[in-house]
Amino acid sequence: MPLAQRAGDNSEARYCGVEVGFSDDIQNTLAFALGGQFDFIVAPLTDPEYRPSKGKEGPPPFSGSDLVLSPSQWSSHVLLQGLSNLQIWLRIPLIAPELQAVEGTVEEDTAFLKREPVSGKPLNDSWEWWNMFRSLCEYHCQLSVVLDITGSLPSPASLKRWIGEPLRAVIIHTSAFLTNKKGYPCLSKRHQNFITTLFNHNVQIIVSGESMHHVDSLDPTTASSESGANGSEDGAYPRHHLRPYLEYISHLYRHMDPLTEQERFEIGYRDFLQAPLQPLMDNLESQTYETFEKDATKYNQYQKAVYAALVDRVTDDETTVVLMVVGAGRGPLVRASLQAAEDAGCRLKVYAVEKNPNAVVTLHSLIKIEGWEDLVTVVSCDMREWNAPEKADILVSELLGSFGDNELSPECLDGAQRFLKQDGISIPSSYTSYICPITTSKLYNDVKSYNDLAHFETAYVVKLHSVSMLAPPQEVFTFEHPKFTGDKIDNGRYKKLLFQPPEDTGSALVHGFGGYFDAVLYKDVHLGTEPSTATPNMFSWFAIFFPLRRPVYIPAGSAVELHFWRCVAPSKVWYEWAVSSPDVSPIHNANGRSYWVGL
Amino acid sequence: MPLAQRAGDNSEARYCGVEVGFSDDIQNTLAFALGGQFDFIVAPLTDPEYRPSKGKEGPPPFSGSDLVLSPSQWSSHVLLQGLSNLQIWLRIPLIAPELQAVEGTVEEDTAFLKREPVSGKPLNDSWEWWNMFRSLCEYHCQLSVVLDITGSLPSPASLKRWIGEPLRAVIIHTSAFLTNKKGYPCLSKRHQNFITTLFNHNVQIIVSGESMHHVDSLDPTTASSESGANGSEDGAYPRHHLRPYLEYISHLYRHMDPLTEQERFEIGYRDFLQAPLQPLMDNLESQTYETFEKDATKYNQYQKAVYAALVDRVTDDETTVVLMVVGAGRGPLVRASLQAAEDAGCRLKVYAVEKNPNAVVTLHSLIKIEGWEDLVTVVSCDMREWNAPEKADILVSELLGSFGDNELSPECLDGAQRFLKQDGISIPSSYTSYICPITTSKLYNDVKSYNDLAHFETAYVVKLHSVSMLAPPQEVFTFEHPKFTGDKIDNGRYKKLLFQPPEDTGSALVHGFGGYFDAVLYKDVHLGTEPSTATPNMFSWFAIFFPLRRPVYIPAGSAVELHFWRCVAPSKVWYEWAVSSPDVSPIHNANGRSYWVGL
Repeated sequence: MPLAQRAGDNSEARYCGVEVGFSDDIQNTLAFALGGQFDFIVAPLTDPEYRPSKGKEGPPPFSGSDLVLSPSQWSSHVLLQGLSNLQIWLRIPLIAPELQAVEGTVEEDTAFLKREPVSGKPLNDSWEWWNMFRSLCEYHCQLSVVLDITGSLPSPASLKRWIGEPLRAVIIHTSAFLTNKKGYPCLSKRHQNFITTLFNHNVQIIVSGESMHHVDSLDPTTASSESGANGSEDGAYPRHHLRPYLEYISHLYRHMDPLTEQERFEIGYRDFLQAPLQPLMDNLESQTYETFEKDATKYNQYQKAVYAALVDRVTDDETTVVLMVVGAGRGPLVRASLQAAEDAGCRLKVYAVEKNPNAVVTLHSLIKIEGWEDLVTVVSCDMREWNAPEKADILVSELLGSFGDNELSPECLDGAQRFLKQDGISIPSSYTSYICPITTSKLYNDVKSYNDLAHFETAYVVKLHSVSMLAPPQEVFTFEHPKFTGDKIDNGRYKKLLFQPPEDTGSALVHGFGGYFDAVLYKDVHLGTEPSTATPNMFSWFAIFFPLRRPVYIPAGSAVELHFWRCVAPSKVWYEWAVSSPDVSPIHNANGRSYWVGL
Repeated sequence: MPLAQRAGDNSEARYCGVEVGFSDDIQNTLAFALGGQFDFIVAPLTDPEYRPSKGKEGPPPFSGSDLVLSPSQWSSHVLLQGLSNLQIWLRIPLIAPELQAVEGTVEEDTAFLKREPVSGKPLNDSWEWWNMFRSLCEYHCQLSVVLDITGSLPSPASLKRWIGEPLRAVIIHTSAFLTNKKGYPCLSKRHQNFITTLFNHNVQIIVSGESMHHVDSLDPTTASSESGANGSEDGAYPRHHLRPYLEYISHLYRHMDPLTEQERFEIGYRDFLQAPLQPLMDNLESQTYETFEKDATKYNQYQKAVYAALVDRVTDDETTVVLMVVGAGRGPLVRASLQAAEDAGCRLKVYAVEKNPNAVVTLHSLIKIEGWEDLVTVVSCDMREWNAPEKADILVSELLGSFGDNELSPECLDGAQRFLKQDGISIPSSYTSYICPITTSKLYNDVKSYNDLAHFETAYVVKLHSVSMLAPPQEVFTFEHPKFTGDKIDNGRYKKLLFQPPEDTGSALVHGFGGYFDAVLYKDVHLGTEPSTATPNMFSWFAIFFPLRRPVYIPAGSAVELHFWRCVAPSKVWYEWAVSSPDVSPIHNANGRSYWVGL
């Protein structure tokens, strides 16, 4: 049975297993474990001593006889998903034993994992073992990793790397547990935090080892249910000796923070690649408006920004401020602007410009329902083609994408500023993209599964979750509005960035880059997704993911050098990116051959 | 006109060019250079000041007006091969100027080549610039490099790297020249050696700069031919001011060692990929026997080995030694063995076993012509199936491939040793494969051009030439014969190798591995291609090339760790290989999926 129920969380991490030795009577072993409230067992499938025939002829079989357990029992309880779709989970210690100790035990056919001290690679970092193995296997999507956890943990940054790896389970040894005042097993604060992080990333816990805490069950309810349903009633099995450990794990699970509303909304989107929008070429669907309009936080920020702008702008009671919403959609910014004007006690004349005729229909109804006919003029037109009858004091838009400028806000607003007064205000007044190198085995393999170049040279909108950020995000490109320079505005950009992972990280693998943005709406009112300053409870934007065609290995202590271009041609805008250190990648998406946004 | 005629050498390196500045009258500039005995010019195609229109709109054109030179003149003399098949040659200095100096001159759009000191990469190694540029361009086959040479040269190992790169030309500056006793320009010994190496690797020389040696032509013949055909007769052009430099280059070319017979044989095969043989599955063609039988050196070594074995073996005049040639082909080893017996003055009974029925026909004729009917028994049969009527004292075979065991000599001789006496002798008695990491841009791009995985996981027979060996070859696998152990012989092997390039190499790129072999025929009589001990004047074996799917960058001071497997299954034998440091490659040819030799 699951560790507990947690609203909105249906992940595999709710199930806890137990490791057992080889047994001829696996039926009984399995029943004993399940009776003890564990959900599955981890066991050697065949007698470690067994060989199909004398000599070294071929590999031993994967599973025991079908006469012992039925095939469905093998696959549902014994971690094997069927041979046609076999998953290999490589089990390694989280902290590598001293090399000396390893030398003696490694078998000849895994001898290639034993490393001489080459290029200063730390031999005692078991992540290096994993990285070498999976690189030799070409990052195969059916290869995952399982970590053995004992009493000590590596440094925080080193530990964090594993979140971006295909970590499926950890085997926590009874020796890793401490003893609390009452004699029950418990874990150190760092262990607790790590286990909680694992729960949040769909990693299963497996308990292993001899019982070192000979105590009664702490929890009277589960104790009674055990004796009732599975335990002593039919007298089949004695109480499971590892039960106190399971109860402690269950305790950790039960005491996690509940999922926030935002997390519940996002949970289904975690680490799921979404094709980027073509906002200028395509019209949004009604459902998309519906979803985004629910983001109260975002429109509150806009309302605050318009309010602050109006307060700055209006010096007497007679002025009527002309405000244009460019890309008005179904009207949320019109509503926020009118509310701000009411709060500021000033007169507002609103033009709502929208190119999507379907949205305009809803916008008209909204205005009628709200009685805004005298305040709002709807303009059903592309803002780039509109001839405005007067100039605006304030231009309000929400054209930002996950990477700030990636939905061509710069180009649209450069076009729209011709009907903004010379001293007019643009909301947003500026926005900046941010980027950082990430480990994300899942997304890399999802991109790779398309089996073509184009998908490796495309940016994706993603709720980044099982991802390890290897260094803090850095600023990439900034755009400011309005920009009255007289010259044609050049929105092409180039930036070179150097990311230095924290010293205690060890080596790591970069699968690509996570992108974010921060926008200044007006003065101190901002809005954004950049993790260190992200606006809380805002769900309109996920991150953006720029993959690498081949993951780049970053030796311990090395920095990652990234080159990023924003390129502009008459009919499209695109990004190019390349890593130049420690290794050099090809330029991705050269000439926008794979991915671009149409103007 | 070419620098000189050199028997057997038809390479482009015979042609020497001159660099000129931009000229409106390129007709005249070209005629002046050709009149001065240069073969081509290197010139800016458009006025460096010219812009198609104001502002920064698009790249400048590639060539000047067709009215100035005809399209065919542009392409034959001005280094441009037509736009549909454009070649880009990146010009960089052989020795990088101080970074400070570069910072000031680099244009904004090449700013990404300016590097911060990341990961300890040496900024003053211009090879790094080249490597970064071509890696960003994904090793494009139309991208080559041209080096500017001045008075100083980098370290020998650093210089050597360029031989494996697509180096098309060097521009040697007049300032690089010294002055000899008579006042004429000459080059330092190291420069001379480098220029000679370039001649040998089809790299063109271009002279550039102001004349610093105001002397008359040294060579009266060319001086007179100049004044006759091109020069003062029609009075069109004065003597070319760089003529003394051209004459010196020509002098170096003329004084190169003549091509040896072996070089003349091999020159057409240089850096040309050949599919490996399937010697057990296919029969050799008559032409192949014809070619290999001409290798006198090889059969001399065999004759010496048989002679030494006979001398050791025969202690009285009565003994008749039974010698079996397994894989006798058209008879060269039969001849060598009989000659050795004659020299040793002992009686020999020869069985010549050959599976190819076409070769057997020729073998029979040979025996008849030579009158060897009483000495030699022909057995038309696969040695693995033959039931020998008696046991042999000596087993002679020539089953070695370019990598020693790669044509399955171990498996064949293990099978054949059943008809060798317990104290019998196998010639060869052992053989060892050798391997080393190499830079070979040409071969890498040739493999890549097949555009599939299988060709990247295949070993090729190649006359390695424009290749840079980054470290000395090391032993891989050794096989000894006979091997009477009672057990089934396991010819599977695994070896881990660590290659440390010389300290003064700098960084380098590994495109794959060059393989060689050395065989002990009998005691001190050996035969092989391993460069440090290679048998001179032997042409039966080229090297073998194991490519990497993606070149591996080796930072300065780092070692290359290679894993190599020889795998044996009931019907085939294959190699697998992987690099694990400084970066980890996938395992190449896993399970022999791309390349194997059939048993």
